[in-house]
Amino acid sequence: MAIAEAIEAVIARIDERRLWERHRAIAQFGATGRGGVNRQALTPEDIAARKQLLAWADARRFATSVDAIGNLFIRRPGRDQFATPIAAGSHLDTQPTGGNFDGVYGVLAAFEVLEAAEEAGIATTRPIETVVWTNEEGSRFQPGTMGSAVYAGRLPLDATLKIVDGRGIMLRDALSETLAAMGVTAHRELRAPIGAYLEAHIEQGPILEAERKQIGVVTGIQGLKWMRVDIVGEEAHAGTTPRSARRDACAAAIEMIAALRELTRDRDDILRFTVGRFELSPNSPNTIPGRALFTIDLRHPDRELLVSLGSKIESLCRMHAGGCAVSVIETLDSAPVGFDPAMVAIVRCAAERQKLPWMEILSGATHDAKFIAELCPTAMIFIPCKRGISHNETESATPTDLAAGARVLAEAMLSLASLSGMLPHERST
Amino acid sequence: MAIAEAIEAVIARIDERRLWERHRAIAQFGATGRGGVNRQALTPEDIAARKQLLAWADARRFATSVDAIGNLFIRRPGRDQFATPIAAGSHLDTQPTGGNFDGVYGVLAAFEVLEAAEEAGIATTRPIETVVWTNEEGSRFQPGTMGSAVYAGRLPLDATLKIVDGRGIMLRDALSETLAAMGVTAHRELRAPIGAYLEAHIEQGPILEAERKQIGVVTGIQGLKWMRVDIVGEEAHAGTTPRSARRDACAAAIEMIAALRELTRDRDDILRFTVGRFELSPNSPNTIPGRALFTIDLRHPDRELLVSLGSKIESLCRMHAGGCAVSVIETLDSAPVGFDPAMVAIVRCAAERQKLPWMEILSGATHDAKFIAELCPTAMIFIPCKRGISHNETESATPTDLAAGARVLAEAMLSLASLSGMLPHERST
Repeated sequence: MAIAEAIEAVIARIDERRLWERHRAIAQFGATGRGGVNRQALTPEDIAARKQLLAWADARRFATSVDAIGNLFIRRPGRDQFATPIAAGSHLDTQPTGGNFDGVYGVLAAFEVLEAAEEAGIATTRPIETVVWTNEEGSRFQPGTMGSAVYAGRLPLDATLKIVDGRGIMLRDALSETLAAMGVTAHRELRAPIGAYLEAHIEQGPILEAERKQIGVVTGIQGLKWMRVDIVGEEAHAGTTPRSARRDACAAAIEMIAALRELTRDRDDILRFTVGRFELSPNSPNTIPGRALFTIDLRHPDRELLVSLGSKIESLCRMHAGGCAVSVIETLDSAPVGFDPAMVAIVRCAAERQKLPWMEILSGATHDAKFIAELCPTAMIFIPCKRGISHNETESATPTDLAAGARVLAEAMLSLASLSGMLPHERST
Repeated sequence: MAIAEAIEAVIARIDERRLWERHRAIAQFGATGRGGVNRQALTPEDIAARKQLLAWADARRFATSVDAIGNLFIRRPGRDQFATPIAAGSHLDTQPTGGNFDGVYGVLAAFEVLEAAEEAGIATTRPIETVVWTNEEGSRFQPGTMGSAVYAGRLPLDATLKIVDGRGIMLRDALSETLAAMGVTAHRELRAPIGAYLEAHIEQGPILEAERKQIGVVTGIQGLKWMRVDIVGEEAHAGTTPRSARRDACAAAIEMIAALRELTRDRDDILRFTVGRFELSPNSPNTIPGRALFTIDLRHPDRELLVSLGSKIESLCRMHAGGCAVSVIETLDSAPVGFDPAMVAIVRCAAERQKLPWMEILSGATHDAKFIAELCPTAMIFIPCKRGISHNETESATPTDLAAGARVLAEAMLSLASLSGMLPHERST
């Protein structure tokens, strides 16, 4: 069978209904009863979702393996058992009030490609794999994109295993429990070579829907800075202390954030500035707050612009401190990532050939693909989600769009998996 | 002994060192180890402080009684056992990060007057009393000034007993435990007549210190409004959602508070505007907040100005809601109180005669005196506190100022207690 025919056969077997039912099945694990899901990493809910996926894999007799951080690999073998695999995946964990598509979709779309290939009875040169990266969200154990960062060697395993959650449970223990429950015996080495990596994901933004495109050909991931601003004023009685005598940590925070919102106003609406966390102490209506803290989440595709803006934040906060002490700490600095142009082209060609409306798009969110891009040629495929809403229980995507993204993923994976010999990046090492 | 001589004899027995040591003794109950105290109403710490005071009262064989809300009355009898008492007091409970003088001082100064009268061996016509009002701060059980409000009939007892704290403990149960531990058997009826009431208190503001006055002759209590603003936007991903597509509850709150701070700017610096509580949901750095709430504490001596300002708040919030839904609820509306002019004059005369530097002052904070002023002629005596700091562990007052205030209180109480027959307000009923 020629490659083009094989690809067509697999695409024809991508089953919209099955893919949708699988989303519904996984959505049961951690369902909040309000349409969303709370399935944080390495919890009983995460374990249950992993076991469900493993049951589907076992039914197909796919090979499974896990690595030292709990990343799960499901493999359909290729003809060349020594060739590096073409992998695709994402994550099964969610935010505490998360939706049913963020992460899950990338896993289930990749698994759908493996099943469709199986049903089509085609053979590939390279193995194709579905990957579940551990703890992408970072809600229970910080930081997020943990599994992919450890796999890529960007986060040391030993230190990561000692991270503790809000209840004092060590990641090492939660992971042991998860691995025992999963019962996967084959071990995968960290940094084991991957031929190429693809990740399908809901956009988590409103652009594809607004532009009426079904496929986002993702060219990269924008840069991200996180900062934490701590303000120390002085607690005092709200009724007796004149404004001129106050060192009001809340008032200072308000002035700072208002000034930062001015600083980050962007006519092109590309710059993202978010204050997502804001806390006062003692947080009592009749006491002038002695302490305030807030976080800044700042994103832009242009590294230099991000660095330049970031450098202005501390002085702007000091300028509006109103007599309070202020400390500004950068807690995360993630440079923009540009995906491999050949990989981006493969995705674009697949969308084009399948006559799906597509556009190039930059990812506003960070994904596991960010770290895997350091290991091997990587790209992402976005599909629309309703009103761009994500990290929200009302997150929604249509069965049609989910299936369309899976078909583009199938074509890209199979094109790559049909290649024999070494891939370009493998030759250079 | 003539009245003037009796007053002099009592003033001479006001013991600065004893008063100071008693403050230190009470400060042990709930001590935080950082110089402050956490002695919330009806907790084991509050019970321990009450028992210490009762031990001192028992040593003097003063009569003790409690009412149905746990207010504690310590009485030194007068010659006329049917005359209404001249009472003074305040509260022993504190804020979670409170100081060693707010409330405690009014109780210990009143008790010092009873002891000094005892040591001077003088007789008064009327009984003199020290009162401990239950739960003035309202930190554990809301609302505050609870004991005095129930005593004055402004808060229904039955409903109050059913109030629940943050851990689900009902006030009725915490109160039973407190009363059992106190072991006071004599019962005082709610609304039992009081001849006149005085309350000594630290200023909790910076004015007396700045004006170098030792005594504040309190003419009244400013008006107070509390509001709660709830904002509902939409949770969304911080990295992917353009500003123009956001309904960011935090951003809306920031805009509202900035506008409210402009609205409440007061050249004379008399108006007090405080945002003491501010909360976001889900309060996660990379999620655009779907919900925000903040509280407003607004105070001014002029009732009309307060009403007029209060009426503008909701529309101003709506104007800055940025696409979010907003609800503004008034949770407290306390009209300004003017104290009985004769009572204010008695305090002023005492300060004047004792050659203490004094000034008239309006109370910025609410006190138990506010509700007792509805029952009987009432006034307050302020002394300075360091830098005006209160509701703070570093709250501080000097032994000299504490004693000076107690001497003014002694003179005012004894002047009133020497009066026979009915007091003016008793004649009218």
